[in-house]
Amino acid sequence: MASARQVNIAVIGAGGVGKCFLSQLEQLAARRASPKLVLTYICSSKKALYNTDHLAIDLDNVTSTLAASTAAPLPLPKLVEFLSSSGSKTVLVDNTSSEDIAAAYPKFLGQGISIVTPNKKAFSGSFKLWQDIFSAAEQSGAKVYHESSVGAGLPVISTLKDLVDTGDEVTKIEGVFSGTMSFLFNSFAPTSGSGGQWSAEVKKAKELGYTEPDPRDDLNGLDVARKLTILARLAGLEIESPTSFPVQSLIPKELESVASGDEFLEKLPAFDAQMEETKAAAEKEGKVVRFVGSIDVAAKQVKVGLEKFDLAHPIAALKGSDNIISFYTKRYGSNPLIIQGAGAGGDVTAMGVTSDLLKVLSQIS
Amino acid sequence: MASARQVNIAVIGAGGVGKCFLSQLEQLAARRASPKLVLTYICSSKKALYNTDHLAIDLDNVTSTLAASTAAPLPLPKLVEFLSSSGSKTVLVDNTSSEDIAAAYPKFLGQGISIVTPNKKAFSGSFKLWQDIFSAAEQSGAKVYHESSVGAGLPVISTLKDLVDTGDEVTKIEGVFSGTMSFLFNSFAPTSGSGGQWSAEVKKAKELGYTEPDPRDDLNGLDVARKLTILARLAGLEIESPTSFPVQSLIPKELESVASGDEFLEKLPAFDAQMEETKAAAEKEGKVVRFVGSIDVAAKQVKVGLEKFDLAHPIAALKGSDNIISFYTKRYGSNPLIIQGAGAGGDVTAMGVTSDLLKVLSQIS
Repeated sequence: MASARQVNIAVIGAGGVGKCFLSQLEQLAARRASPKLVLTYICSSKKALYNTDHLAIDLDNVTSTLAASTAAPLPLPKLVEFLSSSGSKTVLVDNTSSEDIAAAYPKFLGQGISIVTPNKKAFSGSFKLWQDIFSAAEQSGAKVYHESSVGAGLPVISTLKDLVDTGDEVTKIEGVFSGTMSFLFNSFAPTSGSGGQWSAEVKKAKELGYTEPDPRDDLNGLDVARKLTILARLAGLEIESPTSFPVQSLIPKELESVASGDEFLEKLPAFDAQMEETKAAAEKEGKVVRFVGSIDVAAKQVKVGLEKFDLAHPIAALKGSDNIISFYTKRYGSNPLIIQGAGAGGDVTAMGVTSDLLKVLSQIS
Repeated sequence: MASARQVNIAVIGAGGVGKCFLSQLEQLAARRASPKLVLTYICSSKKALYNTDHLAIDLDNVTSTLAASTAAPLPLPKLVEFLSSSGSKTVLVDNTSSEDIAAAYPKFLGQGISIVTPNKKAFSGSFKLWQDIFSAAEQSGAKVYHESSVGAGLPVISTLKDLVDTGDEVTKIEGVFSGTMSFLFNSFAPTSGSGGQWSAEVKKAKELGYTEPDPRDDLNGLDVARKLTILARLAGLEIESPTSFPVQSLIPKELESVASGDEFLEKLPAFDAQMEETKAAAEKEGKVVRFVGSIDVAAKQVKVGLEKFDLAHPIAALKGSDNIISFYTKRYGSNPLIIQGAGAGGDVTAMGVTSDLLKVLSQIS
């Protein structure tokens, strides 16, 4: 039975972030008496759990129950229908990186279903999708939050929104937006010591699980470009797509089309001299090289690629796989507002999703 | 006439932060069609503007209109009555640092009046007042937000709340919480160069407007202790008051009771040797001295005072009058979530108040 103090939750995705989110949701549901949080749908890419009466799915051991299910996920149009027929307020949690699901956000939002997600695709796809998403939300009153689409759980998007919404003028955003790139350059070109060989660092990063299965998916810069697209749009720029501004790829041209990530790693050492040269050029100026993204709001310029930084610069001094994001604004003057910390990982990404969920709950229930 | 899509705003205080807030409010009211923001009360310490029918006060030039008013501020119990009789949802914006107003928060909240404020006093007073505030809000459904009570507009309190509310375990909070102290130590003990004399730096900070009229109000550490009290309570510790843990004062005992700030500044050079010794001791270890606050959540220990930091530590590398706050948590592991930037100033403090107001509006309207 639907009640005003009940909110239904539907979850798509039960991978790394998904599992961490489900564990946080279980704790949250146990801790909060009101509104009552009821899981009514969950699916992975192959399986789903739900029942036609929208009864609560037990959060205890839900991932094993899901693995044992024989039901397939509902096609997206059916899912919209299913969720909007419950009579309760509903939040869809999309813990995937699927473009298809992202493309369906306007449909969900149009039916009053709120969305929280770390999925970058919806907000860094075409500018038309971006507009459709926010106008659907505006019209129905549904909420859409995506803190973890940039910097995982770091308060990057909420901070930028607060700056803009309170009337500050954001002039520039600059930072290291990829945990993988951060790790690679902090090891390859450390502020003290000489650092490792480029190809060896890439190999190590892959072994430690810091890269995508094929490291080229990090080295092409597209992940950073997607994040910059999101921030630039929030800062008011009409960015058509993540490929509509200069993005430097660190994949040697000759290795762009080799068949596998393994073959890529095998052949990468032959190109170490190029990266070594870049590092040496920076060292000559007493600097280190870093892979950064920047948005010059006034000039409407977005770019992603290698830049040189003084050793004392916060971007040079970054550690491990941390992200750092600097907001230069009229109110903050010459010293930017800086946010720094882990920008990847299941738990911190899920944390951003959960805190978004809490924000939605405080507004819809 | 009251309508569901109208929210009344009452503002106490028209000083530095107050004026900046009013300017941000004017922009906000002009930009947002819904809810309609209506200023129904504003007062300084001596004067007030309001009318018994709760009609809108024109935001244009409101500070000059207020200065020309012949009405006195309503006594607090009368103000509670006045605001709760409007029939509209109401938000009280307290832009003062008054303890009396802080003590009346439970009364306002109990009547359903939400509060946003940079006033530290309410949240760093007795633990009983803290409890009364949040239980009154809980019971009436009114909201209370105070982002700017720590680090001005920096997203410090919202981030700590998100960490706690999503179930992360905050183990330690550490940082530089005073713009004045930051400026003094960044000039007195810079990471490169030898820095100035202590008394000369204090004098310069006062001349630049970085200190309170009597610099002892910064140097006694109480301002930092109040901020630590707020954060420790949000992290779950029952801190009785800002004087219930060790706070190091930088006022020489002999100068505690001299009559004026000017006399204090005159006599301070005689005590430079003490601070010079502290600086030299740190230098011997290759470190610099900084005035920091820290909260060890597990050990339930809060302290405020001088500590030594490696030159490469983010706290040592701080610039100007910036604040830096590091959150160590279970999820973030050994590299903390760090927030850094201006932690004082009218515009950025007002920004925290305005963004709190937006959060309240999204929930009550």
